[in-house]
Amino acid sequence: MATVSFTCDYCEGAHPSILEALARTNLIQEQGYGEDRFCRSAKEKIRAACGCPGAEIYFLVGGTQANSTIIDAMLRSYEGVIAVQTGHIAVHEAGAVEFSGHKVITLPQHFGKMDPEELESWLRGFHADETWPHMVYPGMVYISFPTEYGTIYTKAELGRIHGICKQYGIPLFIDGARLGYGLASPACDLTLPELAQLCDVFYIGGTKVGALCGEAVVFPRGNVPPHFFTTVKQHGALLAKGRLLGVQFDTLFTDDLYFKISRHAIDMAMLVKEHFKDRLYIDSPTNQQFPVLTAEELKALEGKVLYEVWEKLPDGRFVTRFATSWATTEEQVKLLVCGQYAV
Amino acid sequence: MATVSFTCDYCEGAHPSILEALARTNLIQEQGYGEDRFCRSAKEKIRAACGCPGAEIYFLVGGTQANSTIIDAMLRSYEGVIAVQTGHIAVHEAGAVEFSGHKVITLPQHFGKMDPEELESWLRGFHADETWPHMVYPGMVYISFPTEYGTIYTKAELGRIHGICKQYGIPLFIDGARLGYGLASPACDLTLPELAQLCDVFYIGGTKVGALCGEAVVFPRGNVPPHFFTTVKQHGALLAKGRLLGVQFDTLFTDDLYFKISRHAIDMAMLVKEHFKDRLYIDSPTNQQFPVLTAEELKALEGKVLYEVWEKLPDGRFVTRFATSWATTEEQVKLLVCGQYAV
Amino acid sequence: MATVSFTCDYCEGAHPSILEALARTNLIQEQGYGEDRFCRSAKEKIRAACGCPGAEIYFLVGGTQANSTIIDAMLRSYEGVIAVQTGHIAVHEAGAVEFSGHKVITLPQHFGKMDPEELESWLRGFHADETWPHMVYPGMVYISFPTEYGTIYTKAELGRIHGICKQYGIPLFIDGARLGYGLASPACDLTLPELAQLCDVFYIGGTKVGALCGEAVVFPRGNVPPHFFTTVKQHGALLAKGRLLGVQFDTLFTDDLYFKISRHAIDMAMLVKEHFKDRLYIDSPTNQQFPVLTAEELKALEGKVLYEVWEKLPDGRFVTRFATSWATTEEQVKLLVCGQYAV
Amino acid sequence: MATVSFTCDYCEGAHPSILEALARTNLIQEQGYGEDRFCRSAKEKIRAACGCPGAEIYFLVGGTQANSTIIDAMLRSYEGVIAVQTGHIAVHEAGAVEFSGHKVITLPQHFGKMDPEELESWLRGFHADETWPHMVYPGMVYISFPTEYGTIYTKAELGRIHGICKQYGIPLFIDGARLGYGLASPACDLTLPELAQLCDVFYIGGTKVGALCGEAVVFPRGNVPPHFFTTVKQHGALLAKGRLLGVQFDTLFTDDLYFKISRHAIDMAMLVKEHFKDRLYIDSPTNQQFPVLTAEELKALEGKVLYEVWEKLPDGRFVTRFATSWATTEEQVKLLVCGQYAV
Repeated sequence: MATVSFTCDYCEGAHPSILEALARTNLIQEQGYGEDRFCRSAKEKIRAACGCPGAEIYFLVGGTQANSTIIDAMLRSYEGVIAVQTGHIAVHEAGAVEFSGHKVITLPQHFGKMDPEELESWLRGFHADETWPHMVYPGMVYISFPTEYGTIYTKAELGRIHGICKQYGIPLFIDGARLGYGLASPACDLTLPELAQLCDVFYIGGTKVGALCGEAVVFPRGNVPPHFFTTVKQHGALLAKGRLLGVQFDTLFTDDLYFKISRHAIDMAMLVKEHFKDRLYIDSPTNQQFPVLTAEELKALEGKVLYEVWEKLPDGRFVTRFATSWATTEEQVKLLVCGQYAV
Repeated sequence: MATVSFTCDYCEGAHPSILEALARTNLIQEQGYGEDRFCRSAKEKIRAACGCPGAEIYFLVGGTQANSTIIDAMLRSYEGVIAVQTGHIAVHEAGAVEFSGHKVITLPQHFGKMDPEELESWLRGFHADETWPHMVYPGMVYISFPTEYGTIYTKAELGRIHGICKQYGIPLFIDGARLGYGLASPACDLTLPELAQLCDVFYIGGTKVGALCGEAVVFPRGNVPPHFFTTVKQHGALLAKGRLLGVQFDTLFTDDLYFKISRHAIDMAMLVKEHFKDRLYIDSPTNQQFPVLTAEELKALEGKVLYEVWEKLPDGRFVTRFATSWATTEEQVKLLVCGQYAV
Repeated sequence: MATVSFTCDYCEGAHPSILEALARTNLIQEQGYGEDRFCRSAKEKIRAACGCPGAEIYFLVGGTQANSTIIDAMLRSYEGVIAVQTGHIAVHEAGAVEFSGHKVITLPQHFGKMDPEELESWLRGFHADETWPHMVYPGMVYISFPTEYGTIYTKAELGRIHGICKQYGIPLFIDGARLGYGLASPACDLTLPELAQLCDVFYIGGTKVGALCGEAVVFPRGNVPPHFFTTVKQHGALLAKGRLLGVQFDTLFTDDLYFKISRHAIDMAMLVKEHFKDRLYIDSPTNQQFPVLTAEELKALEGKVLYEVWEKLPDGRFVTRFATSWATTEEQVKLLVCGQYAV
Repeated sequence: MATVSFTCDYCEGAHPSILEALARTNLIQEQGYGEDRFCRSAKEKIRAACGCPGAEIYFLVGGTQANSTIIDAMLRSYEGVIAVQTGHIAVHEAGAVEFSGHKVITLPQHFGKMDPEELESWLRGFHADETWPHMVYPGMVYISFPTEYGTIYTKAELGRIHGICKQYGIPLFIDGARLGYGLASPACDLTLPELAQLCDVFYIGGTKVGALCGEAVVFPRGNVPPHFFTTVKQHGALLAKGRLLGVQFDTLFTDDLYFKISRHAIDMAMLVKEHFKDRLYIDSPTNQQFPVLTAEELKALEGKVLYEVWEKLPDGRFVTRFATSWATTEEQVKLLVCGQYAV
């Protein structure tokens, strides 16, 4: 009886279609650095999926890399980026944004989300403060969709945040490391084309949604910063064999695969959510679920099910995280929810 | 009649054994960030191949990323790195080293190589100059093996450079993006274990030697900088699915594959070299060959063979680069050297 | 009837003794970059005043410069500095710390002060969190003395914070831009030698305490980071005519001048505090006082007295700041507290 | 018999008029950070002296600080600055430019000067190189006037360099740490207004030309980068008591003082040059002279005259530097050239 892991959404390799495509195209000679036919094809398909014919698209390898490269490219050197306190760039990227010289300015989080009114109030306060020239200028807003707590913004909330950004003349950046799992949620009232209209740059996460690696960075209205290719190289983020990313995204955006596998992960997550429904820390509509478990319950899972412990509550129970993914099988979920593995 | 490309050593995907291994291991659930069984196995095999049981090994995705992460991790903030003027970090990495705050101090190049005596003389001069506290302190020496011109250091030369580094208390770093092609050259008098003894950190290039991506960074005597994992993350260089790199290097270091495919590339390169023997710009013993061709000769290759133009000589001829790799076939070489494609 | 300014403690030039010393020594030829006799003499006097015969001392020009240079010199590249949310480095230095690549990790503030137990708890939590290698490593603690709100730490509090730092193996840095005004306060139970023992680096502020410019950075136990001179130069913080700083600090530390003028500023501040005693925002024992005034009271001061508005309270009143300094005269204070200028 | 020093042009304090002005204005209460009446007055006078009514002017404390702040403010993060190999930023600023993330791209030097045709050729070559997106983009040209070897550009040379910069759309920056000594040279065919027209930003050196400290940065056509004040603060380069710089430059630009004292320094330098005329390393028309002296001649000066040794020649002689300044007296020069101190 093997251990089943729900620790994260990057426990397996890639969707089999991707491995097949890599094998099929393997010996075709192509140029490096993203100038290959696979990247071109993938970009066309992504433009279509986003409804953005003028979008500029770049493929980077991972999330932290994408975040720090995009942020550094879009900010002037005296500017910082606004995020919530639990934003990935504020906590779990080892200071990659600061490494590029920029401050992460933090606002309170609400189940991982930024409150539009708090953002507006902060920006208004900044500009009203006479000492602002002594402070880091807010040059961008960063949000993640879904957030680190699995929550998502409604169309109205996203529109409000984007409107505030436009009012203050700063771009809105959406970290979409788990974008598929957000858009595929039944609770989501946004489509990919709508999301693309409501921000200035975002990326479509591949690493956590079926790929071996890769994030597709989309500048929806061709608003790519000058010399972005050079900035990518400068950040050590330019892949020599760009085809590796091109083939993967070309596959993910063929026959709606990206969304199909995302929906599957959500289906699996909803089974997990249902199982733990009376003890959820957060009402997450996406692939990450946060049951609150007792020490005894953790004990019962030992050696059978893997998950992450998020934090210990004052009452001695533990906030845990169970993540599903494109690779999670019904059988695995059943072991957790109704098999010998259940708690 | 298809075009044959010798433009670079990253025109194809990966060695078929790697694709097979990726497929075979695809659904095994594992931890992220390099903590998986494949990385562990690959590390053991690399330690054995290097004859360094105490080596610390990290897998990064690409060359520029590896260079800038290693250099930043090993330098103090006031230090710079010494390289030759044609060193990859000095020319073609978009200032990634400077991006991390460090100067690249350049010495003259000799067919891509650093002259040990010029290094020693420069270091002696630096320390004899009373104004040195106003200057960037030389904290590391960087060389590439093979160099950007395909040349390699002899054991004696490498030993001398390492000796100078030890005398001045600074580490020697070898960029091994094409390491296999250097060690497999008949002109090379160094083994991998010997090379590992004659430097303080180096990497075994995968991207150009059979992998989809990946460089194995080796600290041969366990001399990894403190918190290197965090530095890797900070540089956006930590791969979530570290298994992608682990599986690849595990395959490359099984049954001597890395060296077998390297030797094949060298065999192919020697056929190219022989073909152009009367018009070589540099006597390169590795997989990059630099024929000097006339405009007519370039014309004759048009639409048939791809290569890189390196520079135009005053006499109107062109220095070109033809690179072979693990994927180059005898048939491809024959088309160039004795088929309809020959010049 | 002239306007009187209490806006800050850098409204005037320098103490007359300093101008006299500059004039007296003006044409003596000396070496640059702090290698002059005046710097040497000043260092000796500061060592004596600190009771630290082995102290290493450097003179920098200003506070932000000193903060960012010291922090960058003492941190490794993957480390950040812990400060309270209102710490000067976290708010009003335009991201100078982030510019050098380091994150400012913020803790709650209590009238500008860091709570030792919150610090200990945060450090304990960081090391207990399994994801810490993905986070910025806490490499230093920064506090200001007095704080930005005029408050000071007791000997016990400072000892506790220093003890926690020692336990975690990280240095404690005290920003002493207004150090004299802290030590001269009747509420202060610390002497300069005691303070020097309870931290790892601090600076003695000159700009706000009688000098034209200048901060004396003290490494009390000779624990200066390697190549600190070069780091100072790299930060653009090395003054060619170091004598300008040497002469000033030599004067300030002759005949106890630094402390005499600090006590005078505190005497003046206590008159201001007494005047506003029924409407103080904070019970500040130093040269900055924070009366809460109504719009009418502000109106009454218009054109007569200058001060800073700190923030507007929900009840419509304003938190203001009145700062005294070495240059504040009894006549000026009298105009505020019992003359035509009073509110 | 005292030692006379020609080691540098910052051996003394300030011109007596400056000390008088500091004393006279000492207790006038003013705002900080350069918002004071003295800075305003100085800026007006500098605008008039430059013939640039729309110039934006900022006062920074020192040369390295000015260089690194200006360069970082005017470059985008992927850009570097072109300088000659002996340029101050390339050698003696401890990597301050690289610290801000930018590469210093070096061209050959000709007695400290950049050759316009070499610049043009390099820029043409860069843009013709297909690999340029992998390289640091040249975003600015830096020259010093006078150069580190005392040489100056003619109006034609400067015009040519500026023309090339305009052609390539990049700004020209002139480091004028010794600007007065260049403009006051009889060999100079440029006026200050002409120089201001032939570049995009420059600074008027105060530290070496009569001030205690200070460099006046001039954006001649109001072309200051956005939020430059914040960038100055971020670099730790904002002086709290900006008046210290304002009073000094106001004095230097009253009654032509800056040029009068510059001319005096040149007069003194020409006496030194005449004395060493048969053994000059470089034909310098400014305040730095470079006699080539034998070991015996150095011996004869021991304990009498101080100077700098620049380098040792293969024939055993030494290139030395003798610098005069506003403070050099005829008596001092006479001791060197015709007194007991002569060699």
